Amino acid sequence: MQIIDGKAIAAQIKQEIAAEVKEIVAAGGRAPHLAGVLVGHDGGSESYMASKVKACEQCGITSSLLRFDESVSQDELIAAIRRLNNDDSVDGFIVQLPLPRHIDEQAVINAIDYRKDVDGFHPINVGRLSIGLPCFRSATPSGILMLLERSGIDTRGKHCVVLGRSNIVGKPIASLLMQKANPGNCTVTVCHSATPNIQEMCLQADIIVAAIGRPEFVKADMVREGAVVIDVGTTRVDDPTRERGWRLCGDVDFEHVAPKCSHITPVPGGVGPMTIVSLMHNTLLAAKHEIYQ
Amino acid sequence: MQIIDGKAIAAQIKQEIAAEVKEIVAAGGRAPHLAGVLVGHDGGSESYMASKVKACEQCGITSSLLRFDESVSQDELIAAIRRLNNDDSVDGFIVQLPLPRHIDEQAVINAIDYRKDVDGFHPINVGRLSIGLPCFRSATPSGILMLLERSGIDTRGKHCVVLGRSNIVGKPIASLLMQKANPGNCTVTVCHSATPNIQEMCLQADIIVAAIGRPEFVKADMVREGAVVIDVGTTRVDDPTRERGWRLCGDVDFEHVAPKCSHITPVPGGVGPMTIVSLMHNTLLAAKHEIYQ
Repeated sequence: MQIIDGKAIAAQIKQEIAAEVKEIVAAGGRAPHLAGVLVGHDGGSESYMASKVKACEQCGITSSLLRFDESVSQDELIAAIRRLNNDDSVDGFIVQLPLPRHIDEQAVINAIDYRKDVDGFHPINVGRLSIGLPCFRSATPSGILMLLERSGIDTRGKHCVVLGRSNIVGKPIASLLMQKANPGNCTVTVCHSATPNIQEMCLQADIIVAAIGRPEFVKADMVREGAVVIDVGTTRVDDPTRERGWRLCGDVDFEHVAPKCSHITPVPGGVGPMTIVSLMHNTLLAAKHEIYQ
Repeated sequence: MQIIDGKAIAAQIKQEIAAEVKEIVAAGGRAPHLAGVLVGHDGGSESYMASKVKACEQCGITSSLLRFDESVSQDELIAAIRRLNNDDSVDGFIVQLPLPRHIDEQAVINAIDYRKDVDGFHPINVGRLSIGLPCFRSATPSGILMLLERSGIDTRGKHCVVLGRSNIVGKPIASLLMQKANPGNCTVTVCHSATPNIQEMCLQADIIVAAIGRPEFVKADMVREGAVVIDVGTTRVDDPTRERGWRLCGDVDFEHVAPKCSHITPVPGGVGPMTIVSLMHNTLLAAKHEIYQ
């Protein structure tokens, strides 16, 4: 059994990105620039955004942060997005989700210029990903592909069972893994809240991607010997033994599942660090105009 | 065993569309207008286009046809598309595929205004379909959903195995059937040329959608008792007993599979007629501005 060290792989890729940025700057170019839009002061959002800013620093990517009060109107927010769309000094930008309830998230996402949509949430990028065209791939699925690739896991002809059908993980990872591509070429099954026999499906999987948001949902009796298990869950659960009172808990009962696996990602330190690295990767692609002119 | 009569269901829906068009016209509106772009004189394309024109007549939808010689350049074709995009008298239009080899089909599709893309092939419509937003659904998958719905087939919690991962059938029907919607809420498995155990997967299916383009690929020993089988195949195979020398052959060995099924679509007369009806439906939606303003 091999624990996939997402933190180490992420660090490696960040070094590679930093080296490329350095070359761009050495050749007289300007460093890629990622802008972030943060509304309100949600603890989780603040901490995600801080991690992204930190990753930018490690990669030599310029970052800037636009903050808005919780009370910002949808129109004001969309006006700010339009300014970012038109700002030539910004290569890509992200709007940290979730947004306050009075704002229609999809309307905000749709307002982002798809050529700067480094989160890959705009319908054009989602559609191009499904069709198999170059696009900004949504960060978590893209990070999972990198993990599989760098861990030398052959996906061709394998049966991948995806747990969850969210727009940011379940659907796009299913879409990517079924493509005629490498990584890819998997038989893909998508299970979700309406699936009556998740255990039966999981027991057939060569690869399980758990993105269902239920702590320790995947138990040892759901996983066959030698499976690859990718745990996307990051639920905060109470933990009085920690000073901060909580810990991150994955969707997989790691302790009991790990011994059966050929490869497994831990939480934390598995998919999480890769998600941020994918964002850095997309920002570099945006700066180089590799996806769109 | 019930044979799903796609021809009858299509006729019924065309009557409903015709009634709605009649109301629009009676209220002083203009009839919906579908334009078609046809390049060259391929027999299959000519015949598909003729069927679409005929369906328009049956529905009271205005149709117009732009013909181009096989030698048309990509730029000329895209210029024509731009004119259709800007022509307020055209509600929706389609470009009959395939196009000659010197033309990049995806570039042509991308040039279509997504608000007139009644074939549902533009990346924005593909992305919105995946996200679960209102969109022009690609015609064949949309027709399959109508067949399931009108045949009273409950899809919730069912395991649907899709054979084929094409952009116009396999991927979008998988995407639609996994949505939290009705029809939908299926556990969905997508199999394709790299799947080693298609028989094993099919034997687990409550619903099989065969869109693999291989005549009579699905045999009786691949289908479990009581399954629903939707056959999207339309391969022309030689048939010296027919005057024209060929017949349409589905992806399912109908004779031997049908007795095991609860429901099955024949070829011809199953999915085929529904595909054209979906196009009529999308044209009506376009004329009413129900999806986009």
